[in-house]
Amino acid sequence: MIRLEQQIDFLKEVDKLKNIIRRNYLCDGNRFENTAEHSWHLALMVMTLAEHANNEIDTLKTILMLLIHDLVEIDAGDTYCYDSTANETKAKREEEAANRIFSLLPLDQQQVYHQLWREFEERETPESQFANAVDRLMPLIQNVETGGKTWQKNHISESQVLERCLPINDGSAVLWNHAKLLIKSSVAKGILHN
Amino acid sequence: MIRLEQQIDFLKEVDKLKNIIRRNYLCDGNRFENTAEHSWHLALMVMTLAEHANNEIDTLKTILMLLIHDLVEIDAGDTYCYDSTANETKAKREEEAANRIFSLLPLDQQQVYHQLWREFEERETPESQFANAVDRLMPLIQNVETGGKTWQKNHISESQVLERCLPINDGSAVLWNHAKLLIKSSVAKGILHN
Repeated sequence: MIRLEQQIDFLKEVDKLKNIIRRNYLCDGNRFENTAEHSWHLALMVMTLAEHANNEIDTLKTILMLLIHDLVEIDAGDTYCYDSTANETKAKREEEAANRIFSLLPLDQQQVYHQLWREFEERETPESQFANAVDRLMPLIQNVETGGKTWQKNHISESQVLERCLPINDGSAVLWNHAKLLIKSSVAKGILHN
Repeated sequence: MIRLEQQIDFLKEVDKLKNIIRRNYLCDGNRFENTAEHSWHLALMVMTLAEHANNEIDTLKTILMLLIHDLVEIDAGDTYCYDSTANETKAKREEEAANRIFSLLPLDQQQVYHQLWREFEERETPESQFANAVDRLMPLIQNVETGGKTWQKNHISESQVLERCLPINDGSAVLWNHAKLLIKSSVAKGILHN
């Protein structure tokens, strides 16, 4: 059964996402997070926080988007959000990765997965705006929990964090208010410089 | 806003699932899998394989179930499926864990999450049967990919793997056929003893 074999091959390939290491620490500060467990956490955030979206969202679509949104990192690697040089080449590297990884699937699923990934990147629909909101909120929370470990290590300033987090507002004004409070109190505590 | 604070506290607590280590290796055999990345992988399996369910399933419900099905391991630890002594106390330990962890949430969400977790454990609905099917299939695939590393380390036999995998058939006859082929070829290759 060729269709099932294609699907299983895809599911074996994506196991590699567990070895893609991000720049932020877990809440306990003991190790960096990998992209697979990060994706799980974001899906659970949607399950828990969907009521705070600015517009009513299709929860299933938003979760599916987050389950696959970082699969391109298997080939393209994690691009640190504050690394402007690496971000110049990010789009091209990730497009090539999407083409290779999704092509493992049966044709109809290739198209669905590719479209969901593109929708996440474009940030134009309520679902992708909320998905991007949780994707930017969780690393902020993790940074606060670890006393600003990643910020200090990479000399990140309040204005950089504010700029990075601003799109949270497109997905959820409630979560954006929460983010602003976290940033403000981080500066007050001295774990983020301005 | 107390409701949001409860939800965020829950989402910080579940970060600990990334430190719960399972007994099976990743497909590359380099390290053990943790339960958070395992949960992500299963949700993606449902997204990819739902068409093979014996009965039509509510995909969203099945994915939500898998996102939270192992949260109890934060307190109760991962109980190895072939460890009969540990499995005697598993239900009690996990019920206490569910009570503590879900109680971090607002009351309405506590009830939803607890009910989903219980439904997964009871394996009576099409959604929970399919969720359990992918939960049993992936470790089999990972074992095959690593040349039977976990089986050999724990002296697991073909009949034990067959018994463990049999509930796959309740969720999907197609996936059960695939599982049987994998088990048969593993014995033929000498990576699983009979």
